[in-house]
Formats: sequence, C-alpha cells, structure tokens
Amino acid sequence: MIGRLNHVAIAVRDLAAASEVYRTTLGAEVSAPEALPEHGVTVVFVTLPNTKIELLEPLGAESPIARFLERNPDGGIHHVCYEVDDIRAARDRLVRNGARVLGSGEPKIGAHGKPVLFLHPKDFLGTLVELEQA
Amino acid sequence: MIGRLNHVAIAVRDLAAASEVYRTTLGAEVSAPEALPEHGVTVVFVTLPNTKIELLEPLGAESPIARFLERNPDGGIHHVCYEVDDIRAARDRLVRNGARVLGSGEPKIGAHGKPVLFLHPKDFLGTLVELEQA
Repeated sequence: MIGRLNHVAIAVRDLAAASEVYRTTLGAEVSAPEALPEHGVTVVFVTLPNTKIELLEPLGAESPIARFLERNPDGGIHHVCYEVDDIRAARDRLVRNGARVLGSGEPKIGAHGKPVLFLHPKDFLGTLVELEQA
Repeated sequence: MIGRLNHVAIAVRDLAAASEVYRTTLGAEVSAPEALPEHGVTVVFVTLPNTKIELLEPLGAESPIARFLERNPDGGIHHVCYEVDDIRAARDRLVRNGARVLGSGEPKIGAHGKPVLFLHPKDFLGTLVELEQA
C-alpha cells in the first residue's frame, strides 16, 4: 500500500539557523522559507536526490509543533510521510487493521495541496506517520 | 555534500510485531530479520520505491539503542542516514564547520558493510545523523 517516502519532517526552533546547518554544514540545497499559516508552520524544503527533508518552525499560537518543541527543545524528527494512491482506500484498510487515524478521520488538504491524514504514533512504533495522496 | 537519504531507522521493542505493522497494516515489503551482533541490533528492511526504512531491535547487553527505548518505550525514529561520496572529506568539512562527530571521529564499517560516521544530535537539530559512504 505505502509508496514513496515523500518526506521526513524535522521540527526546529529557529528556521534560519536550521537552514544554515543543512545548507552550509551539510551542503544541501535548501529552499526559501514559506509561511503556511493554515498549518501553523513556516517550512523550508531540503532537496535530496531521492526525497526531501522538511524543516518546520512553529507559526502562530496554535502551531501543531509547539508542544513537540517544548518536549524536545533541540528540535527533532517530527514525522515521516508516505505516499499512497488512494487516501480513502488506505484509511479504510488501516481502520480495518485496528489502526487509529487522528482527528475526524477525513483527509484534509496538506502543506503540498494534496489530501493527507495523520496516524496515531502508538499504532506505528512510536512514530507519527502522515499519508499523502500522491 | 549530502546525497540520497539512504534510510530512516526506527527503534522498536518487538521486531516481529513491528514487521507485521509495516507488512500487513501499511502493506509494504519487509525483509526477514538479520542479526548484526557487532552492531548490537537485529534489523529488518522495509523497501520503499525511493529509499528504505530500517526497523531495529536491541540485540545483546550493549545495544546502542537500549537507552533510546528506555526513554521511548513505544519506539521511535532513531536516526536518518545520508549518503556521501567521500566520508573522510565529509568529516573534515563538518569539523571545519564546528560540528561534532561521535566516537573517535574515524569511520567504522556500518551495517551495510560501508564506512559510516554518526554526528552529534545537538549540532543537527536534535536529530542523530549517520553518514554512509555510498
């Protein structure tokens, strides 16, 4: 069912400093920051040959990554995102297998303009998993 | 400098149960378990079209992931591994930029039979980073 690893998301406190780590220290291609107020984050994309890393900084009082950064003040890997062909079929299979989908269970439009769902970390080896319809 | 994302490593308590989550619930291709006593882990590989996920279970009393699992009893993402062309040149660049390499600073032969280094999470946004010579 799952296809490509779309991205690995790393939550950071300071996006400018984090971009510099990836650009200068690790020598990767890093995009300009993009504010996504409807998702409560500002994001930069690190382009690797086979996938991408997303660096996320909290934006606004309701940012979904604010609590994660309270628990992980240095930052840390926040989630992985796998692509699926049909997000509703994927959800139905997951629910049949006893996995919990976060929120209402209905796909929302994610940061790339495509339908996404988040799965409960307790059902996926302590890892927050995002599914994105490819 | 960094190239492909070679893998994302997830530490788990129970490799059989974790394999089942990826095989049955997420519908991915999962390899048979492989014991790597010299690395203190048993590993399975989840093959995705563009990269792989490695599920790691502690093996032996000195496993490098045992403490991580004490802090994260459900499991969790342990590290990401980026490929580099020349691991010593990569290390020298990192050290020049003020980043800390774990251990002796000399590459060791990693789980894929290739030279690897681990970088200090405090210097990389709270993320343990492995570099592997491609």
